[in-house]
Amino acid sequence: MEHGGNLHDAKARFPKAPEPWIDLSTGINPRAYPVPPLDPEIFHRLPSPQQVRACERIAAQAYGVGDPECLVAAAGSQALIGLLPRLRPPGRVAIIGPTYSEHELSWSRHGHRVLSMADLDAALAAQADVIVVVNPNNPDGRVIPSQRLADAAQLLATRGGWLVIDEAFADLEPGHSVAGGSLANTIVLRSVGKAYGLAGLRLGFAVAWPAQAQAIRDNLGPWAVSGPALALGSQALADQAWLSAERSRLSRASHRLDALLHRAGFELIGGTCLFRLARHEVAAQYFERLAGCGIWVRSFAFDPALLRFGIPKEEEWNRLEKAISD
Amino acid sequence: MEHGGNLHDAKARFPKAPEPWIDLSTGINPRAYPVPPLDPEIFHRLPSPQQVRACERIAAQAYGVGDPECLVAAAGSQALIGLLPRLRPPGRVAIIGPTYSEHELSWSRHGHRVLSMADLDAALAAQADVIVVVNPNNPDGRVIPSQRLADAAQLLATRGGWLVIDEAFADLEPGHSVAGGSLANTIVLRSVGKAYGLAGLRLGFAVAWPAQAQAIRDNLGPWAVSGPALALGSQALADQAWLSAERSRLSRASHRLDALLHRAGFELIGGTCLFRLARHEVAAQYFERLAGCGIWVRSFAFDPALLRFGIPKEEEWNRLEKAISD
Repeated sequence: MEHGGNLHDAKARFPKAPEPWIDLSTGINPRAYPVPPLDPEIFHRLPSPQQVRACERIAAQAYGVGDPECLVAAAGSQALIGLLPRLRPPGRVAIIGPTYSEHELSWSRHGHRVLSMADLDAALAAQADVIVVVNPNNPDGRVIPSQRLADAAQLLATRGGWLVIDEAFADLEPGHSVAGGSLANTIVLRSVGKAYGLAGLRLGFAVAWPAQAQAIRDNLGPWAVSGPALALGSQALADQAWLSAERSRLSRASHRLDALLHRAGFELIGGTCLFRLARHEVAAQYFERLAGCGIWVRSFAFDPALLRFGIPKEEEWNRLEKAISD
Repeated sequence: MEHGGNLHDAKARFPKAPEPWIDLSTGINPRAYPVPPLDPEIFHRLPSPQQVRACERIAAQAYGVGDPECLVAAAGSQALIGLLPRLRPPGRVAIIGPTYSEHELSWSRHGHRVLSMADLDAALAAQADVIVVVNPNNPDGRVIPSQRLADAAQLLATRGGWLVIDEAFADLEPGHSVAGGSLANTIVLRSVGKAYGLAGLRLGFAVAWPAQAQAIRDNLGPWAVSGPALALGSQALADQAWLSAERSRLSRASHRLDALLHRAGFELIGGTCLFRLARHEVAAQYFERLAGCGIWVRSFAFDPALLRFGIPKEEEWNRLEKAISD
């Protein structure tokens, strides 16, 4: 399974490229939430249930979830993607895609029959046991409106089905989130890695109805999240001023990226303010050219004309502009 | 499920006890491996497969495992305890106990029939699909010799069974470890939290035959271990001089603890150099007295005459000696 963010691959394939590499292959905020000096005790002691609950309360507030019991902290939303398929008997799972590939991999691995669907519609909701939506979607940023999600959830709930909504990229576009909406039989996944630039920390959350949240908590077992993740994640999630400033900054940066891609003849397909998906008939040539300049972007096996660009750091713009315009 | 290490419970039950609490309720080294200043990038970037493999290579060396492919890093050995029961169909699982309670909980939760057995014998190995041994055992430190483990593994292997050996407390008694012994159908679990005093970091390993290691790796999914755990864990595991010095220090400290308990009329049942299990007919009174003095030890529902004592920090001995002798 190919993922963004691995510069070892870049260096191996393009050993002559100038260093340092510019990594635009992920949708992770290039400006991380500042890491303060950490109390050594958080590395030393087992994280207590009270620390976990405190972190979940802060996350509930950040995500607009009324009841913190509906939230479960995990070591990254990926851990939850791996867990959910184990929590119900094999069935029919519709994944609205193309999207983040780990959903399909995980449901398939656990014996579910996966159908890849281009869009969410009522006919689908009437047939599937589980529907998985990444919203906003990765890589194209497509957003399914809350009302259509609510309708699908309602239909699924009548048959004990689940709606799984991966909101890994919703922090910077909170208007699209349904985490606080208490949709029937809906499990929302949130990630601290992307908007806060803390992907190495491994912290994410599931939001579900209380019984389902408890089942997820039981299955993750004790001490599923590290002390550093609880401490630093709590601090980041409580800092809405920082997030709000990043929202403005990243919004401006993503428009600057659009303009640059447009000038180079790319057609913008979509994105969020953490990444842009663009089409070019010679996308593969651009991929090679950029890599030759030490700039790593994301290509996709399902459509070689597409490239996904993360947002550069302030000091990286010059190299990107030069590489793409030359 | 009750566990050691939660001072919130202590404070709630004994609100008048003097602070700071002395936590002797775990088997975690009270002197943690020193946490150096950490590169902010390890919080920011997704941990790469190469970083994971590098950490596994270092762990293989520390544990005496020839082939690093046999090692799988996880977010604590608890994550592996939660995973293993999902990786084979429900069967008969013999757990040699009393022991760490999460093994029974996890196998039971996933539909296995759990038999608690007092000792490992050949008749058992002929009946069970899986045998679980904590070695050295928690809480009593009992060690099953390597040859008996090898014999059991051999018998189990003829029927596709597994021997699971939890070596969470083997770092300081490496002579008892079979991690490097390539026993047939044997899965060894190792923990970085205990001997290195890094329980908040969440890092552990499974050691298994290559195909089984790969199955565990696949089921954990990508980015199962945090950047801080990989970086700091690698550093600790490579530092055998530090571990060796701790071995001497903790061995002396555990003998000092034995002498103290003996003087107070406790009978020593066993232990490792990270904890001691002792019996006293008025153990419950000692538990209350110590807690009243702000010292938290571990009691056990299965036998109220037992208490388990972790090793105090240097500056904590005086309070412990006074509290236990008064």
